[in-house]
Amino acid sequence: MRVCVVGAGSIGSLFAAHLATVTDVLVLTRRPEHARALNDHGLQVSGRHDFTVRVTAAADARDLPDFDLGILATKANGVDAAASELGGRFPEATLMTVQNGLGAEEIVRTHGEWPLISGVTFMSGTKHTDAHVEYILDTPTWIGPYGDTPFERVEAVARLLVDSGLKAEALPDLRPAQWSKLIFNATVNGVAALTGLPHDAHFAAEGELADLGHLVHELVEEGRRVAAAAGVELHDDPWEMNVLATKRGSAHYPSMLEDVEARRPTEVELINGALVREAARHGVEAPLQTAIYRLVKAREASYS
Amino acid sequence: MRVCVVGAGSIGSLFAAHLATVTDVLVLTRRPEHARALNDHGLQVSGRHDFTVRVTAAADARDLPDFDLGILATKANGVDAAASELGGRFPEATLMTVQNGLGAEEIVRTHGEWPLISGVTFMSGTKHTDAHVEYILDTPTWIGPYGDTPFERVEAVARLLVDSGLKAEALPDLRPAQWSKLIFNATVNGVAALTGLPHDAHFAAEGELADLGHLVHELVEEGRRVAAAAGVELHDDPWEMNVLATKRGSAHYPSMLEDVEARRPTEVELINGALVREAARHGVEAPLQTAIYRLVKAREASYS
Repeated sequence: MRVCVVGAGSIGSLFAAHLATVTDVLVLTRRPEHARALNDHGLQVSGRHDFTVRVTAAADARDLPDFDLGILATKANGVDAAASELGGRFPEATLMTVQNGLGAEEIVRTHGEWPLISGVTFMSGTKHTDAHVEYILDTPTWIGPYGDTPFERVEAVARLLVDSGLKAEALPDLRPAQWSKLIFNATVNGVAALTGLPHDAHFAAEGELADLGHLVHELVEEGRRVAAAAGVELHDDPWEMNVLATKRGSAHYPSMLEDVEARRPTEVELINGALVREAARHGVEAPLQTAIYRLVKAREASYS
Repeated sequence: MRVCVVGAGSIGSLFAAHLATVTDVLVLTRRPEHARALNDHGLQVSGRHDFTVRVTAAADARDLPDFDLGILATKANGVDAAASELGGRFPEATLMTVQNGLGAEEIVRTHGEWPLISGVTFMSGTKHTDAHVEYILDTPTWIGPYGDTPFERVEAVARLLVDSGLKAEALPDLRPAQWSKLIFNATVNGVAALTGLPHDAHFAAEGELADLGHLVHELVEEGRRVAAAAGVELHDDPWEMNVLATKRGSAHYPSMLEDVEARRPTEVELINGALVREAARHGVEAPLQTAIYRLVKAREASYS
């Protein structure tokens, strides 16, 4: 199975490097110098694993041979451009999305009729250079069929990921896992972006009236009500995910906080925006999640 | 009537300079070099008015002669230290508070039995140096009796302020004006601090689902419900105050935004905290104002 990884940030680099140890891997980058660095030096993984592999990289989809599986590993707001790059090509490919939030599959669908696999990943890494990624959290990637993609294809992809050294599981219905992460991210990323706090003990503190944990808990409860109205039973309790994560050694810096500090567009639209639109669609009130959504949008508006 | 202005930020400097044109004015500063600059150079006003006056400044209350009126013009979180400086002295003085939010009078009361006047000011200025303040908005200061202070004394102070060139009005009950500004500040300052936006057109925009004006409007409505439960009829509609202010030429930079950008403690406790505690006391739900309160507190926690 030849794989093409589209977007080589930390998540894309982790997929590409591991898969390259067991199969032929292409990498489609945005910047030509990034593709050049990968072709010249290979891709190095440090941290939990330690190896360097060869990959074939290009910055233009027209330079790529056919492939069987495409993993779209861009940020949520890069999916449209990435899928448009692939549009009209690679008719034999199955495409897999692993973005935060909801709605990446619908965006890909507007660019072609490829069979789709939904993914949600909990692994994390830090990209040190274009050709070196550190593997930090080896938590799993869960994948499931989108639309009428056969489950056997999903299972084959999960096996390939596991063979490559990553943790992965095929689920017949991904929505419970996807929604658990959606609610977690809408809450934790949004609050981190607005407060400047990394994901630390403040997020679980519920002692005093002023404590942030009350708000985090209420945001999770709203998300849970939206999920219930959408007919989704959550795979994990986002509040427990939150409490557990704040007990890890070093506080995680959510990507939305990194984005606002660098004054970059955030993933708010596909995370908080998606949750708020789901609430409206199912007739559920979500005033606090809506407030976080509007505040982060306003924060983005303050850049200019 | 000899006046002592305690705290010479922009508001304190505007009071001190104008009053010094019609009466004897003392200024109590925090920093000795600030007092020295005032004693050496006098206090200059530019902008809407243009003059320089002599004042007598000191950084230690023990260096001050007796006075009839003390104006506490520190930030809300400086009231406790300022009143404690005056504690046990100046038994003939009436003290006036002009802080944002609620509760400054109660804090002063814990330090002495002086008659108190409540104030709320809408004027604004920019301090360019320790001895120079620019008078920007010449909107009025409203004052009223606190506790059993005779209204005649309040009227005398209002006349003195008007004689000095400032806009002022004595009101038998200040709470309607104080609460209008409280709700306005809890909303606009809190949202500005979290989003990084100055008070601009975004605060009044209600076109799209993501627009910030929806949230601002809902925050004002919550505040209005708390005021109603507290038996206060608002003097001005905070939503109209908001819309009007965003239509001024240049967007105002709320002090709470300046504070978080400089990583200083904000006035959140006496503004948003006070509103949230009033809501609890009167059994009214205020989930959005409570969220803003907790987010700003968390933003402060991120400094360390």
